[in-house]
Amino acid sequence: MTPKKPEKQVDTKQLLEGFGNQILNDINHEKNPRFVTMVRSKSNILYDDKEGYLKLGAAREERNFINVAQAKKFMQTMAIAAKCHKFVSENLHTSIRGLFYQLKYSLGEDVDENIFNEQAESNPLIEDLEAALSIKRENLNLNANRKGVLAGNMRVIDKFGDDRIEIDTGKQGRSGWAIPSDVDNDIQFVDIKAKYVLVVEKDALWQRLNEDAFWKKENCILLSPQGQAARGTRRLIRKLADEGLPVYVFNDGDAWGWYIYWTIKTGSMNLAYIGKEIATPEARFLGVTMSDVEKYDFLKKMTMRATEVDIKRAQEMLGYQWINKHKEWVAELKKAIATKSKLEQDTLQGPRLTFVGDYVKEKIKNKDWLP
Amino acid sequence: MTPKKPEKQVDTKQLLEGFGNQILNDINHEKNPRFVTMVRSKSNILYDDKEGYLKLGAAREERNFINVAQAKKFMQTMAIAAKCHKFVSENLHTSIRGLFYQLKYSLGEDVDENIFNEQAESNPLIEDLEAALSIKRENLNLNANRKGVLAGNMRVIDKFGDDRIEIDTGKQGRSGWAIPSDVDNDIQFVDIKAKYVLVVEKDALWQRLNEDAFWKKENCILLSPQGQAARGTRRLIRKLADEGLPVYVFNDGDAWGWYIYWTIKTGSMNLAYIGKEIATPEARFLGVTMSDVEKYDFLKKMTMRATEVDIKRAQEMLGYQWINKHKEWVAELKKAIATKSKLEQDTLQGPRLTFVGDYVKEKIKNKDWLP
Repeated sequence: MTPKKPEKQVDTKQLLEGFGNQILNDINHEKNPRFVTMVRSKSNILYDDKEGYLKLGAAREERNFINVAQAKKFMQTMAIAAKCHKFVSENLHTSIRGLFYQLKYSLGEDVDENIFNEQAESNPLIEDLEAALSIKRENLNLNANRKGVLAGNMRVIDKFGDDRIEIDTGKQGRSGWAIPSDVDNDIQFVDIKAKYVLVVEKDALWQRLNEDAFWKKENCILLSPQGQAARGTRRLIRKLADEGLPVYVFNDGDAWGWYIYWTIKTGSMNLAYIGKEIATPEARFLGVTMSDVEKYDFLKKMTMRATEVDIKRAQEMLGYQWINKHKEWVAELKKAIATKSKLEQDTLQGPRLTFVGDYVKEKIKNKDWLP
Repeated sequence: MTPKKPEKQVDTKQLLEGFGNQILNDINHEKNPRFVTMVRSKSNILYDDKEGYLKLGAAREERNFINVAQAKKFMQTMAIAAKCHKFVSENLHTSIRGLFYQLKYSLGEDVDENIFNEQAESNPLIEDLEAALSIKRENLNLNANRKGVLAGNMRVIDKFGDDRIEIDTGKQGRSGWAIPSDVDNDIQFVDIKAKYVLVVEKDALWQRLNEDAFWKKENCILLSPQGQAARGTRRLIRKLADEGLPVYVFNDGDAWGWYIYWTIKTGSMNLAYIGKEIATPEARFLGVTMSDVEKYDFLKKMTMRATEVDIKRAQEMLGYQWINKHKEWVAELKKAIATKSKLEQDTLQGPRLTFVGDYVKEKIKNKDWLP
């Protein structure tokens, strides 16, 4: 499969300069400096039923400098933009914590005041800036936490510093390739020969399938988010789906495993402002389901008692319209609640270690998945 | 540097068969079947002051089959040994959770009894078996949780399944090489051209230094345990120290960061039964220290208020003989307690992002470290 031509990379430096010039322009024309960002609060988060992901609605917010309630935040946002402009110009990255400490330092050692006292203040303003400029923090040279590994017939071209590194994700042995924070800038995925993506919640199960050379025999990309999927991992799944690869998800059979699936599929409320970029509505859920107990006799002995927190979470999920619009999921969740039970994906190793792969293959072959 | 000849790998299959034959022999001679393991409780954990790590003392425990209190555990340990023998014979690996589910399955679907009801029952018996046979669970084909990445001038030869994979850990770009659970069996570290190992607690700081090509310029192995170090990572640090590489550790300046250092250096109580294999008493602590505040002016503004839990943990650490034998550490801990403050390693990005590497270089150059 020939990968799509990479989209033109965002010129963040230019964007930030445009943003700054606009403020300058306001000042030069003796107007109240202002900028517009998207409202990211719950009231403006909606599920796009047609597209199948969580996104922000039309509500916009104007921030003005000459406004007692907004002046401080305005100044703070400008300070963040200036720092990010510096990072992008220097071609250096840091974390949002690193940014916070740079801002803390920036007024110098002799000034008692801080631009920010707590990171809890700077984080939402980074999101304001992302939303105002319609970019992701990765474009601002801010690394997010990363987590996740993969193996499969594909190559990664990572233009890193002065190097152009080629990584064959089919030659990473027991380790797999560690999915980075930013899978968009200066990185390309080429020679994607795999036919589908299999997402496996737990790293232990990924290791099991990797040892069985499952990805090689089935010609898939075997990926584990290692629990809840990080931004980079969600974005990579989206990009692989853009290449035309079907995405199958194989998680624990409980509210948490199921919600990890839903986060991959429809995105999450926290990240609704970049919903389109990280959601994969095409994803399908292979299991583990409560219905599996009826299909695989040995699983009867393998269920665990769900805790009250598990049940409460399943009940909450029944309330989400993007979930309860699927009768199959309503049935699953109700079954979990009624039987007060759950099933780990690890249980599939019960009869024999290699059964895990057979389960996945059978599910895909029989199109035995949930939407 | 030419790596040491790999030690002869343990023949676990033979060991397990010897273990089984000895029990059979007891039965054939109408003796009470028995085996001997090490006492792993706190009373038998001691700090070896000469060697510099936590290990088990001389106390041994005999387990007898014909003993009301021991019969069940005896049977369970045999079941674990039999399963691991199977895994090793098949050349397949699983996690301790996978083993638990295999044991749960093993009496068949129609038997109501389980060999184990909870994994909390099987876990300590795996450790009994490790201690009885003087091997690590990795030799029993049981994968531990893995975590950690590295980059540096070194190659890894990973005999994985039917493949013999060569990985250049200097060509892993932004990702780094993911440290596996087992760094002993069918894996070799060759062409180690790096001159020392730098352990960096947080992945965000690892990414920072990796972007600066710190490991390339300084010719070191840049390693992050990504928080508390997993078994595989601790074992790898030990192995790199065995190759003659000095090990420097750079963590947060609080009780938790410091304790991560101590776990790498002396091992931990939980893993005292394999202390020698995972401890690196040669390790040195570069920082962050409370004394750094006196050396680097800007850090005065960067300290955070320590919580009560932080202070309590620091006080506990003052009670450990392997820590309080060093006057430098007593002074550090007392300073943290007296000033009720802490310092994150991320703060070193305050003046400029690349300051982090300069801090590390200066510390090493001036031999400004704690023992």
